[in-house]
Amino acid sequence: MKKTILLLFVIILCPKSSWSQDSKAQKSEINQKVSDLLSKMSIEEKIGQMTQITVTNFEAKGKPGVFDMAKLREAIQTYHIGSILNVPNPGAPTIKKWNEVITTISNEANKTRLKIPVLYGIDAIHGSSYTAGATLFPQQIGIAATFNTEIARKGAEISAYETRASSIPWVFSPDLDLPRNPSWSRIWESFGEDAYLSSQMGKAMVEGFEGNNVAFKYHVASCMKHFIGYGSTTTGKDRTPSIIPERVLRQFDLTIYQAAIKAGAKSIMVSSGEINGTPIHASKHLITDILKTELGFEGVVVTDWKDIIYLHSRHKVAETNRDAVRIAVLAGIDMSMVPEDYTFYTDLLDLVAKGEVPVSRIDDAVSRILQMKFKLNLFQDTVANLKDYPKFGSPEFISEAYNAAAESITLLKNNDAVLPLAKNEKILVTGPTANSMKYLNGGWSYNWQGENSDTYAADKFTILEALMDKAGHENVLYTQGADFATFNDAEIEKTVELGKSASKIILCLGEKNYTETPGDISNLYITESQSRLALALSKLNKPIILVLNEGRPRLISNFEDKMNAVIQCYLPGNEGARALADILFGTINPSGKLPYNYPRYPNSLEKYNRKHTESLEDEEQNNDAKYEKSYSPQFEFGSGLSYTTFAYSNLKIDKSEINDTDDLIVTVDVKNTGKLAGKEAVLLYLSDNYASITPEVKALKRFTKISLVPNETKTIIFTLNQKDLQFVNNDLKWISEKGTFKIQIEKLTKEFLLK
Amino acid sequence: MKKTILLLFVIILCPKSSWSQDSKAQKSEINQKVSDLLSKMSIEEKIGQMTQITVTNFEAKGKPGVFDMAKLREAIQTYHIGSILNVPNPGAPTIKKWNEVITTISNEANKTRLKIPVLYGIDAIHGSSYTAGATLFPQQIGIAATFNTEIARKGAEISAYETRASSIPWVFSPDLDLPRNPSWSRIWESFGEDAYLSSQMGKAMVEGFEGNNVAFKYHVASCMKHFIGYGSTTTGKDRTPSIIPERVLRQFDLTIYQAAIKAGAKSIMVSSGEINGTPIHASKHLITDILKTELGFEGVVVTDWKDIIYLHSRHKVAETNRDAVRIAVLAGIDMSMVPEDYTFYTDLLDLVAKGEVPVSRIDDAVSRILQMKFKLNLFQDTVANLKDYPKFGSPEFISEAYNAAAESITLLKNNDAVLPLAKNEKILVTGPTANSMKYLNGGWSYNWQGENSDTYAADKFTILEALMDKAGHENVLYTQGADFATFNDAEIEKTVELGKSASKIILCLGEKNYTETPGDISNLYITESQSRLALALSKLNKPIILVLNEGRPRLISNFEDKMNAVIQCYLPGNEGARALADILFGTINPSGKLPYNYPRYPNSLEKYNRKHTESLEDEEQNNDAKYEKSYSPQFEFGSGLSYTTFAYSNLKIDKSEINDTDDLIVTVDVKNTGKLAGKEAVLLYLSDNYASITPEVKALKRFTKISLVPNETKTIIFTLNQKDLQFVNNDLKWISEKGTFKIQIEKLTKEFLLK
Repeated sequence: MKKTILLLFVIILCPKSSWSQDSKAQKSEINQKVSDLLSKMSIEEKIGQMTQITVTNFEAKGKPGVFDMAKLREAIQTYHIGSILNVPNPGAPTIKKWNEVITTISNEANKTRLKIPVLYGIDAIHGSSYTAGATLFPQQIGIAATFNTEIARKGAEISAYETRASSIPWVFSPDLDLPRNPSWSRIWESFGEDAYLSSQMGKAMVEGFEGNNVAFKYHVASCMKHFIGYGSTTTGKDRTPSIIPERVLRQFDLTIYQAAIKAGAKSIMVSSGEINGTPIHASKHLITDILKTELGFEGVVVTDWKDIIYLHSRHKVAETNRDAVRIAVLAGIDMSMVPEDYTFYTDLLDLVAKGEVPVSRIDDAVSRILQMKFKLNLFQDTVANLKDYPKFGSPEFISEAYNAAAESITLLKNNDAVLPLAKNEKILVTGPTANSMKYLNGGWSYNWQGENSDTYAADKFTILEALMDKAGHENVLYTQGADFATFNDAEIEKTVELGKSASKIILCLGEKNYTETPGDISNLYITESQSRLALALSKLNKPIILVLNEGRPRLISNFEDKMNAVIQCYLPGNEGARALADILFGTINPSGKLPYNYPRYPNSLEKYNRKHTESLEDEEQNNDAKYEKSYSPQFEFGSGLSYTTFAYSNLKIDKSEINDTDDLIVTVDVKNTGKLAGKEAVLLYLSDNYASITPEVKALKRFTKISLVPNETKTIIFTLNQKDLQFVNNDLKWISEKGTFKIQIEKLTKEFLLK
Repeated sequence: MKKTILLLFVIILCPKSSWSQDSKAQKSEINQKVSDLLSKMSIEEKIGQMTQITVTNFEAKGKPGVFDMAKLREAIQTYHIGSILNVPNPGAPTIKKWNEVITTISNEANKTRLKIPVLYGIDAIHGSSYTAGATLFPQQIGIAATFNTEIARKGAEISAYETRASSIPWVFSPDLDLPRNPSWSRIWESFGEDAYLSSQMGKAMVEGFEGNNVAFKYHVASCMKHFIGYGSTTTGKDRTPSIIPERVLRQFDLTIYQAAIKAGAKSIMVSSGEINGTPIHASKHLITDILKTELGFEGVVVTDWKDIIYLHSRHKVAETNRDAVRIAVLAGIDMSMVPEDYTFYTDLLDLVAKGEVPVSRIDDAVSRILQMKFKLNLFQDTVANLKDYPKFGSPEFISEAYNAAAESITLLKNNDAVLPLAKNEKILVTGPTANSMKYLNGGWSYNWQGENSDTYAADKFTILEALMDKAGHENVLYTQGADFATFNDAEIEKTVELGKSASKIILCLGEKNYTETPGDISNLYITESQSRLALALSKLNKPIILVLNEGRPRLISNFEDKMNAVIQCYLPGNEGARALADILFGTINPSGKLPYNYPRYPNSLEKYNRKHTESLEDEEQNNDAKYEKSYSPQFEFGSGLSYTTFAYSNLKIDKSEINDTDDLIVTVDVKNTGKLAGKEAVLLYLSDNYASITPEVKALKRFTKISLVPNETKTIIFTLNQKDLQFVNNDLKWISEKGTFKIQIEKLTKEFLLK
């Protein structure tokens, strides 16, 4: 028996992370350059820098993807715009085409008085997703499910490489939202419901994007988004109000941004939402006082799409557009994603002229923007040399995307070991997500809503194609079975008939591609056309493997008990189907774990780190009436099965009592007690047994992912520090309180006392 | 044509309401008595006063409803308890039996050294609901639907009369919760989702309970509950965490309590929940700083059931029970509903002895309790003289309960004027709520969960019985059709078969009786057994009148389009079925309006006073993708049809511009343009067009209920004041901002400017 010791030095409280931080000398050199340049700029040139316009604004009428040079000239020469975003029509240019686009823009900028380069920003969300031929990874929710920060880092590195290959130096990623409502349309863009997991993953992505030197040709500036509380709307609808007391915001949401800022993130995008009645774009408290002053964020604060205008037209906190500009700029906005006109420029110019916005605020904003341009070395290199990017879309990169998908896919149920499938089994593959690239990729794929993935990724495998490739065409039966919306009894009958010839059924259900408001739903249940198909097939009494390909956990409780296996793919990207097929047939042993509670019912959306009052123990029930516990998720946060088994033992702590400076070393043995090699995410939870703010039942504090061959044991070492014992009190201070705490790893627990 | 002018002087900002306020002389006399008595009391006697025990604790073993005198003596003599609550087994004594119970307790109290009377408190929720033979009104949600504060006042007066007839001087009512999640199990105990409606109704009930002189034999002390934020749990589950920023709490929830305190409410019960991580029972900020100091509340603060103990065992903010007592008493609790042991007494005695709780805090609590006892004149009269209560359960009172039900029942849909029914129509009455008193009454009826209403109210009409009485037995077909939970295809077939002989179908669906945690649900849809019945009946192609008898709005969107009429009864109480039958047959013209948004889908729970971002206008949709609006309630707040028609015209304001001291007088004409006399609730909404805190789309500011005969017109006059233009800003101050406002009455609007 092999036994290794794995040391995990988790250093959270070190004063300064060295990764991606600029050296003092560099910093002062850039500061000098910025102040020299700023001193030469007119107010018009300054305000131009703060203006970001969408590239499609410069399109020649009736000629998709072709510049109207007069419009581009006007933007850069007349309005001095500092930044352009988005993708030319019809979407997803090749790197060669991107090269031409950026060259055209760069040439125009070089004709200006000060030759300040235009900063191009792009939604590179799961890879360089607006470039044809780029490597597309699982969406962030899948990355979270790997519980492997190296996968997050590596994915961001490759995305950076391929984005720079597209001559673009700035990505609007990672997403650091902490969704609290599982019906939100962008939960898949986040790392799920846990703040610690999100902070570790977000940090890894920032490091992957920016590297040690963000100016290097394989790195890009990242953009944390959406600051803050965007993913927590009360009703679950996109861009609707959130209610988050500042105490809660600080204890959870803010920690994720803190970790990413410490990792060096160069920019941040503001949430389109409101918290407690204040749109974030209008909140000086959040943007200036907390983000810039308290957290010391030195990068660029950019708005989201049209969000200054929306302060007037949607949020109604500004009586005019001009007022909206004043409010947002005074709140601390550095750059406005206007993005379709020059009202921001003209309004802001007028506001400064009339003394309603001080020049000092403009200078602060422009300094931050110029700093970012200098850090990215854009004054030297704005266009990629394509020869520098031989690995773009390469097998090496594709293999990393495959690995990410393989580690993300989460086996939630496997009754009677119905999986893995045997070779030469006759299988029926069916369901609306069985044969589509656009559902595997979801939104932010080739274009905004991702509806063209089947064209752009035509050479990639759908689930059906991957299974045919894996199992042999002769062993795979297929019919669509259902679509997402319409009832087609004839098709269901046909599917059931076909199922009679199969030994097992691979039922692929889920969601269409979407993001943002078009993805809003009012009912978290999976669509009825799909549940009808599931129920009809269940009458065959053949094993059904339910494959979920969905951005959010659509409820399956009305048929889940009739499924023999359930496997969650999330939105696994272009290589996802191959990874899934390999998992279904046992070539790959699954190791993903759920990064959220998968609810059972639409009006019971408790989180895993609920309060004790949300899942009362039996003895705390009232004797006068028995009632069902409301906390019973379909699958709990951290759920995920393997084809092998892992045994946890010897949970130990180095001290049973600690004082308020001690670290605590936690060790546990994990053994592969099955017959297959496998990977296991080891999760450490902490519970504060009593606290003056009602404590969570448990909270994730550490995790790691290990590989074990059969009979191998590894000893995992986690170090907890004082910060881990703290929470935010009503005075908005992080404090710990004396008393007992409980550590939980798998089913093992250990208590200790903070003296 | 008759035209009258109705003047409504709504005076909100007057410095002191005269109703139910104690005169200065009375006050000082009572203060003197309290301080005299307090000075004679031992610390044990004081702490005893703060202790409330449930009456069933004193029951003789195996003898329901019979005192074990040793236990009672121990409570009163040894522990000096100040208060007893709840109902002896098996529930709902007659007034004669209550007389004996209270006499026994009173005699025991008279044997103590200081002869301090024991204060008996009871859950008289919709009438004196724990007394056999009492008049049971609609539950509060129905009272809200009347939009008639006189009905609320009158109902509370009758409840007070009948509770005093039961020798009980203290009721745990009204409920001032502001539910934000429609799946909450106690939404029917509240006045619905609007704070203004709730405050007006709550005020009227306090006035009804307490009258001008609470000591009078027909009045009782009221208890506002549950302070505060109880009805807003995130997940909708009872007694689980709420998230409410203080700004929001002040703008909405707190205003309801303010109105009731101003009306003179003598006591308040604390919410069992937590807000933002702090259980209210542990919140000095909410109980002492805001309630007692800022709002100047001088009455008694009582806990809810076992809630000090739960600070330890459920909320985990106290490491021990003793700690829980310390935290709660220091937070400002005056009386502990312990209620099943003497731990509160012994722990608090020890805490005072060791200086952990100052005697001054005990004296404050006991003074409040003694004050209430003096105000209720309990030192003179503790037991009712039954001869004083000839109207108990009288036809006069029953007629008021009938009127309340008749004005509450809300006609939500009436396609092709399918209602009212014609005489001698053959109707099928079916559905699980068609023949039950316990579903008409709901919880808090004869006992906690209300499961015995069919025994106690056997002489009252169920819906079926009322329809048989109204239409003649020969015209009514009946079968149960379905129950709430089980699928019975044979019964459904039988019902459909029976339906063939009827011309119309009265389908009675809804909910079982429940309150508190046993009423928790995880799925807001009406149960599937019921929707199956509805769908099966719809295939008959006969007009179906859906009668909803439910505590909360269970979703009906999967069959609502197949119903020809929908009528919401809420929980209309003992006289509800008669009122319903009279409405169905047109003897009564319906006039209720919905006090909440009735949702269409489980994950789209927007309120009527949503923000603009929650219901975007078409022009504000993103051009790149069309999508369904998420705001589309099945029926909106304020919905409610009549058998006649009302036309609104001549909306006028007396000034188009006002300054910051002006009132604004709004007038509108309402005409009955139909052929039947009818009542109409006239609702005035205000919109602040732009504000620094995102404004609500609209907010109810005034309402009144009028009667109009055909062709009659009334001119309604509302006076708005400066307070109506204000909102709570981030500094927690009530402010208004210059700019335009919009008044809306029915479909008419009018703008004005605040200069």
